[in-house]
Amino acid sequence: MAAKTNAGNFFEDFELGHVFEHATPRTVTDGDIALYTALYGGRFAVQSSAAFARSIGYAAQPLDDLLAFHVAFGKTVPEVSLNAVANLGYAEGVFGVPVHAGDTIRTTSEVIGLKENSNGKTGVVYVRSVATNQNGETVVDYKRWVMVNKRDTANPAPDAAVPDLSDAVAATDLVLPSGTDFSAYDTTLSGSADLWGDYGVGEKIDHVDGVTVEEAEHMMATRLYQNTAKVHFNQFAQAQGRFGKRLVYGGHVISIARALSFNGLANAFRVAAINAGSHTNPIFAGDTVFAWSEVLDKAECEGRDDLGALRLRTVATKDHPPADFSYKGEDGKYLPHVVLDLDYWVLMPR
Amino acid sequence: MAAKTNAGNFFEDFELGHVFEHATPRTVTDGDIALYTALYGGRFAVQSSAAFARSIGYAAQPLDDLLAFHVAFGKTVPEVSLNAVANLGYAEGVFGVPVHAGDTIRTTSEVIGLKENSNGKTGVVYVRSVATNQNGETVVDYKRWVMVNKRDTANPAPDAAVPDLSDAVAATDLVLPSGTDFSAYDTTLSGSADLWGDYGVGEKIDHVDGVTVEEAEHMMATRLYQNTAKVHFNQFAQAQGRFGKRLVYGGHVISIARALSFNGLANAFRVAAINAGSHTNPIFAGDTVFAWSEVLDKAECEGRDDLGALRLRTVATKDHPPADFSYKGEDGKYLPHVVLDLDYWVLMPR
Amino acid sequence: MAAKTNAGNFFEDFELGHVFEHATPRTVTDGDIALYTALYGGRFAVQSSAAFARSIGYAAQPLDDLLAFHVAFGKTVPEVSLNAVANLGYAEGVFGVPVHAGDTIRTTSEVIGLKENSNGKTGVVYVRSVATNQNGETVVDYKRWVMVNKRDTANPAPDAAVPDLSDAVAATDLVLPSGTDFSAYDTTLSGSADLWGDYGVGEKIDHVDGVTVEEAEHMMATRLYQNTAKVHFNQFAQAQGRFGKRLVYGGHVISIARALSFNGLANAFRVAAINAGSHTNPIFAGDTVFAWSEVLDKAECEGRDDLGALRLRTVATKDHPPADFSYKGEDGKYLPHVVLDLDYWVLMPR
Repeated sequence: MAAKTNAGNFFEDFELGHVFEHATPRTVTDGDIALYTALYGGRFAVQSSAAFARSIGYAAQPLDDLLAFHVAFGKTVPEVSLNAVANLGYAEGVFGVPVHAGDTIRTTSEVIGLKENSNGKTGVVYVRSVATNQNGETVVDYKRWVMVNKRDTANPAPDAAVPDLSDAVAATDLVLPSGTDFSAYDTTLSGSADLWGDYGVGEKIDHVDGVTVEEAEHMMATRLYQNTAKVHFNQFAQAQGRFGKRLVYGGHVISIARALSFNGLANAFRVAAINAGSHTNPIFAGDTVFAWSEVLDKAECEGRDDLGALRLRTVATKDHPPADFSYKGEDGKYLPHVVLDLDYWVLMPR
Repeated sequence: MAAKTNAGNFFEDFELGHVFEHATPRTVTDGDIALYTALYGGRFAVQSSAAFARSIGYAAQPLDDLLAFHVAFGKTVPEVSLNAVANLGYAEGVFGVPVHAGDTIRTTSEVIGLKENSNGKTGVVYVRSVATNQNGETVVDYKRWVMVNKRDTANPAPDAAVPDLSDAVAATDLVLPSGTDFSAYDTTLSGSADLWGDYGVGEKIDHVDGVTVEEAEHMMATRLYQNTAKVHFNQFAQAQGRFGKRLVYGGHVISIARALSFNGLANAFRVAAINAGSHTNPIFAGDTVFAWSEVLDKAECEGRDDLGALRLRTVATKDHPPADFSYKGEDGKYLPHVVLDLDYWVLMPR
Repeated sequence: MAAKTNAGNFFEDFELGHVFEHATPRTVTDGDIALYTALYGGRFAVQSSAAFARSIGYAAQPLDDLLAFHVAFGKTVPEVSLNAVANLGYAEGVFGVPVHAGDTIRTTSEVIGLKENSNGKTGVVYVRSVATNQNGETVVDYKRWVMVNKRDTANPAPDAAVPDLSDAVAATDLVLPSGTDFSAYDTTLSGSADLWGDYGVGEKIDHVDGVTVEEAEHMMATRLYQNTAKVHFNQFAQAQGRFGKRLVYGGHVISIARALSFNGLANAFRVAAINAGSHTNPIFAGDTVFAWSEVLDKAECEGRDDLGALRLRTVATKDHPPADFSYKGEDGKYLPHVVLDLDYWVLMPR
């Protein structure tokens, strides 16, 4: 009878090439947009205003790209990461068509790699997850790898298969928003006169502000994404665990950092790709999150003289204002106050 | 002048047969659906996806039945239960037409029973509440009884009139969703292959997961339902009360339990009736809620070979994982960790 | 490089007559309405029900006037009050056209007064802020003044220019809702039979209920308004400040008081003007807010025999039930439990 409940997959349950069709398609609405604003306070004009969005050629204000990402990601949890010990990384994440209120998102995941750890107790599972809208158009296509417990250490290890993942999405592989025209982009309403040409590789920006995380907020966010990972919700169980408290969903921190980055990157209207991402230390309710960014690279967008791409590293910290831009120690390891290291591409008008 | 504020009704104020037309009709929207998802994290595909809802014949994704119930219920508080000492029970609750974004709900309540308690200080008031949409169609029709303070113990008792209430709604009285067809119901997207035929009477299911309640969450939920019962909101007053803290609205616990029940009952897409319900112990912020269910009965649905009904008992517990399915002690009384005993019918595809 | 982030304006940066075109226009939706309900629990029928709103001639349920106000206000923070020491007052605030889901709000502010304080460290900046919808219609037009730090005390003081502000908006300057007709206004559904004629000047009403404020709630509210004032969000910094904790946005308290005022003013369906407002003491998470109101004045509405205006003082208190209607001591100073003194006009059917 217990078989009616989902116990999640263990390492032995994953098979190379298997495709999961994840459950619970999700229609996103103006309600999700409002909640996302209440949770993060984003001020990017394209996502905030239907009128502004139309002025650049969108049909309406799109959802924040990361809201779409979190919804897509949440669907993968029951099959991919219910028994995950750690979310190890992201790569080759490309955002496709923008998502608007009324769209329905679903996600599939293919197992693209498997490697048992030398301890024989866990293994690493690599998946490629593709979220599509009701028209079958790709919303986001990304890879992630997680460490998953084995059911039984006596079970034999599968043949190791580790996918060859790029360090970064090539600028030429970014999906540019079709039908848009930024020639009349209003930098007064967008909140900053700094456009693509004003940023230089190596430039670092302190996003200044800090936001304290609350239990009710991260749980509401994570449930909004229908992400059921147990560590976020159950204080009774967590009290007996390693940290004694609920862990905040890493995606919540990504969204906080992105919202903070408005102060310095107000015209970065779209997240175009996720090159890499690490949740480097856990974060808990009561911690105050700060963020800073570095411009890692710049690229022109093919066929568009009104748009450019910036490759950014955004680092989020806890209880540590980022004026010193520190993130790794001399040993190359992340400092204890660093909670996120995200490498991604944004689009910005020129 | 104080007469301009509502002091609520005391036991003497209720008159058998009187009908309250409750105030504040409420238009529910996509915003309510998103908030409900953020508060409970429900994953039932019919309520989550417009595309999935249309695939079974609905015009769009309906609101969760319990969201509609809580909105309908909230309207009754100012007249029925502002001075209630306890919410004693529910019976004969039948859900009618599904509710969609844009519908406007209003509620009326008829006093169907009155019985003074032997202490002369309180009495029990029975009401039948009917919520309708803007077309006058019934959304939910249920009975509940509450213990209400007398204004003055010297006032005489009314003639006792206790309604004859059924133990359960007859399966033949359930309202089946018209215009629907479950022959192409997609059990991959719904999250479980277990359909009506796979459940047996007597079967028990541990819903596994636990969710910790926060003050901000239960208050936002209860306000969303425009439920003004004082005990949920006012810590200044509650600090001086019996528990020293705010009580969580019992309906909040029902919704948590229902969302948890997805893990084991993923295809129970509709709450069709509430047979009985007891809030057996109080619950407070910080408590972690778990749930388990037992199949009490099964019924075919007249004229439908694609649908069946399951009668369930769902028990919610606090700080007590439900693997032992315990809920009553040898004395027949509810155990202290049991916070909800809900007896209800759900519909499920066959 | 730091120039890419907004450090806010200091007193020396303000120039008389300068007009700020604030960033981030905002399309408000049903999602915002639902969140506002979850945050405050308002029960005014016009804002709650599309059907009720149509019955008086509105196209749909409008947003709560204060939700529109907070959104309009939030836009002014980055230029006007990021370095504000105190929000000193409001005056001459007139609400224009009602706001509906789908409208896009933007705000401009003109500097209408400047006066350096005698300490040479701070100055008072007066602004007139005008919020308009996508059709250029005025949503709200108000004045406020804030105390702002100087960047450098050595900088010379500007010529003092203090605007001449009215004590109250004249009743004849209120904007009446066009196209409405209250002759069939339903006082059963609105929740009270007390209409304009039933209120007398000098009458005081205790709104009875109290609501405890939570960190997650005031932060979600303030972010929903895209208000970025630092003191509300950053516990790490606030721990080192004067109070040791985050300050609740004053507008959050205004909205709590307005929602509480339903109990006694259920037919005050529209806030028409803000005559004056003071946040007289800080409020923090954990405080319980109560409210009482006094009728300061009454006015007929020109050309309308179905509507009247009430000028109200609503006082919010913390941890102090308002049965004694106290708000100022014998010395004329606000008592320590008083957190808000708001003087405003509401419209009410006759």
